[in-house]
Amino acid sequence: MTKEVFERLLSEKQYKAIKSIFDTMNPVDTAVLLPEFEDKELVLLFRLIPKENASMVFTYLEPEEQQVLLEAFTDKEMQFIMDEMFIDDTVDVIDEMPANVVVRMLAAAGDKREAINTILKYPEDSAGSLMTLEYISLHPTMTIGDALQKIKSRGEDSVTVNICYVIKKHKLLGTISAMDLLTCDDDEKIIDVMDENLITVNTLTDKEEVAQLFDKYDVLTIPVLDQENCMVGIITVDDAIDVIQEEAEEDFQKMAAIAPTDKPYLKTSAFELWKNRIPWLVLLMLSATFTGMIISSFEDALSKLVILTAYIPMLMGTGGNSGSQSSVTVIRGLSVGELDVKDVFSVLWKEIRVSVLCGVSLAVACFVKIILIDGMLLNTAGVTHTVALVVALTLCATVICAKVIGAILPLGAKILKLDPAVMASPFITTIVDAVSLLVYFGIAKTFISSI
Amino acid sequence: MTKEVFERLLSEKQYKAIKSIFDTMNPVDTAVLLPEFEDKELVLLFRLIPKENASMVFTYLEPEEQQVLLEAFTDKEMQFIMDEMFIDDTVDVIDEMPANVVVRMLAAAGDKREAINTILKYPEDSAGSLMTLEYISLHPTMTIGDALQKIKSRGEDSVTVNICYVIKKHKLLGTISAMDLLTCDDDEKIIDVMDENLITVNTLTDKEEVAQLFDKYDVLTIPVLDQENCMVGIITVDDAIDVIQEEAEEDFQKMAAIAPTDKPYLKTSAFELWKNRIPWLVLLMLSATFTGMIISSFEDALSKLVILTAYIPMLMGTGGNSGSQSSVTVIRGLSVGELDVKDVFSVLWKEIRVSVLCGVSLAVACFVKIILIDGMLLNTAGVTHTVALVVALTLCATVICAKVIGAILPLGAKILKLDPAVMASPFITTIVDAVSLLVYFGIAKTFISSI
Repeated sequence: MTKEVFERLLSEKQYKAIKSIFDTMNPVDTAVLLPEFEDKELVLLFRLIPKENASMVFTYLEPEEQQVLLEAFTDKEMQFIMDEMFIDDTVDVIDEMPANVVVRMLAAAGDKREAINTILKYPEDSAGSLMTLEYISLHPTMTIGDALQKIKSRGEDSVTVNICYVIKKHKLLGTISAMDLLTCDDDEKIIDVMDENLITVNTLTDKEEVAQLFDKYDVLTIPVLDQENCMVGIITVDDAIDVIQEEAEEDFQKMAAIAPTDKPYLKTSAFELWKNRIPWLVLLMLSATFTGMIISSFEDALSKLVILTAYIPMLMGTGGNSGSQSSVTVIRGLSVGELDVKDVFSVLWKEIRVSVLCGVSLAVACFVKIILIDGMLLNTAGVTHTVALVVALTLCATVICAKVIGAILPLGAKILKLDPAVMASPFITTIVDAVSLLVYFGIAKTFISSI
Repeated sequence: MTKEVFERLLSEKQYKAIKSIFDTMNPVDTAVLLPEFEDKELVLLFRLIPKENASMVFTYLEPEEQQVLLEAFTDKEMQFIMDEMFIDDTVDVIDEMPANVVVRMLAAAGDKREAINTILKYPEDSAGSLMTLEYISLHPTMTIGDALQKIKSRGEDSVTVNICYVIKKHKLLGTISAMDLLTCDDDEKIIDVMDENLITVNTLTDKEEVAQLFDKYDVLTIPVLDQENCMVGIITVDDAIDVIQEEAEEDFQKMAAIAPTDKPYLKTSAFELWKNRIPWLVLLMLSATFTGMIISSFEDALSKLVILTAYIPMLMGTGGNSGSQSSVTVIRGLSVGELDVKDVFSVLWKEIRVSVLCGVSLAVACFVKIILIDGMLLNTAGVTHTVALVVALTLCATVICAKVIGAILPLGAKILKLDPAVMASPFITTIVDAVSLLVYFGIAKTFISSI
């Protein structure tokens, strides 16, 4: 359904028609549509959404629209939304709202208030902040029939039944799937059919680690235990997907020297984008002072043999590319848990071998290219076998240094408990640039006596 | 459980003890452990895994170990594994095996053979290749009681019951959740309680698009329809997570100029890594010929004013970094579906504004830095206000060009139906390098009459 259809129906006050359209739409799609309207129409439209979908649509809206609605809500509407929303989603909304809205929300939270405060107190990137407190708990001595009865009497839709949790004195003993409930005999005991093979996390487990567990074990929910090993909540796979996406985006941004943000590009103002991008650019520009100093100190050599200057961009570029290849490989390996600090020596040994292979083959290609293309084809002044040799040798050394530095820096950052992703290409490029220039001029002075 | 424990138990032939340990282990963990053993021990250990977990462990092994086992299996064991494995997992294994193993597998496939062939015929990156054919289908005229009866009589564990599909004459009418089955009254009709709000994909839908739907709608399964809109299978969320991870890794590798591979780093030989990395390095090295040519053609100017050379690395580096910031932002926006080809003008307009902001602020910072640090502090020969102005102006122009090129190239690739990620930093850097040099020398010739 396009915006135009709704605009027309709104202008004709055909509210009943709007209601029926909303009835057939997926809440996610409704939430994508609503922000296209002005605040006043947004509130009006939201009130036309069928009750059973309203809280879902609300959950999927962006914080800006949520705030507009919360400020327009009557007490009764506020109460309704707070009753219907999942607790973890409610906490996500609260995190983004100004104080006056939060006060009204908490006042309407009723018996959910305690649960909300529980989640709010966990650190931002922890499993605790991600979990929901709504799950079905069963007692080990119940029969399957008892369990079915309990679920039926509870009869909620706002909780997952795909996996139910068997709990005794707050301790998690096992899980039982909806399939088990549907296929086991009514008089079987829960304790006899439950799955005791548990994947659990702690409230303080890092959310990235939680997401990796979902990926590794292909589970739909993971129970969260507190410091006393008591069950406090569950994390669902949709939250894990969000974390995986966010973490990948964060790594992409850091590697491109952008301050991480999770705001959609089209909704971010040019000024904000500038703010996210300029700090690293300035820092990296200033760090290039070193390369400038190195070149200045070899001014004499360069003025005597200007052809050497012509190869500086190629040497730096290839060094930078080689370094990025290694650093990106290692950074992602660390991010997805494929590599660990203990692998530092196997990574190093592998990168040394790869870098020698790359360095030697590039040097040969480069030597041939200078002689054939620059020398014979383009007839560039000053291209000699000696110059080609100097450039090729420098290239080989640069590639080896670049790859080793590219692999070591992220691992070093991890060992120092820093974020490996900030050690990405731009940072490594600056170091590699300086190293390659020093090597270049060193080799040049050795081989070419006239400079 | 560590390798050492198993080695000891194996040497003491304590097979019963090994069996009991396996019984308590998660199949995923068992699959992580097994590859640490030699082929002969691997086969022996695999035979000690409890029957109900064997196919799960097999599924999670890497192709190398799967092949070792398949080649060692008796006909009976082959039959058992083929019976127990999910069809989509079976197809994944078949994809990686040599012909002689595939022949044996298909011979043992029995009545699954047709289903396997169905999936095998879909293109590699399509929804069809990702789906499984095992799901629970219900008829709309059934009651909840009938449905419960059907599920109980089928009583399988190898199929998801979380969402069941209501199908009439091969057409999907709606879905019904396990929660509905457990909470509705037995005599209610399926057709009255089913959810008609469907998210579906086609067998030929790109798997990346499928993964985006899982992320957007937070669903656990998505039904797959064929060209006649008949239901053929379902895709489960664990496969979607794998796709999301793979696509992110692929983008990372392409952006770092590495040929994409999904083989774990530590299992890839140095030679293979070299093969993945060298083509782009050679290509980018050769493309630097242009920058070399540009510098050579301005040889006279450079030999007269060597200080200009000192700022080349900084100009190129900052240009490269600025370009990457824009290209990575656009590439990821396209990858996760946040940006589309139709946004080309809003992206362009935004990047122009951001680039002017970045360009001007960097130019000012650069001018001040050259005067204060290079000139006054370091006393570098040749640093004048004019040189500082030339460098600063070039920097501003370079940053603007770099950001606009960085944003346009991935969008252009997308419009031409190429992969935007290959238009990443190294490629853009080469273009930006050439542009910045031309601008540099152009501005220098204008402002400095002596060269």
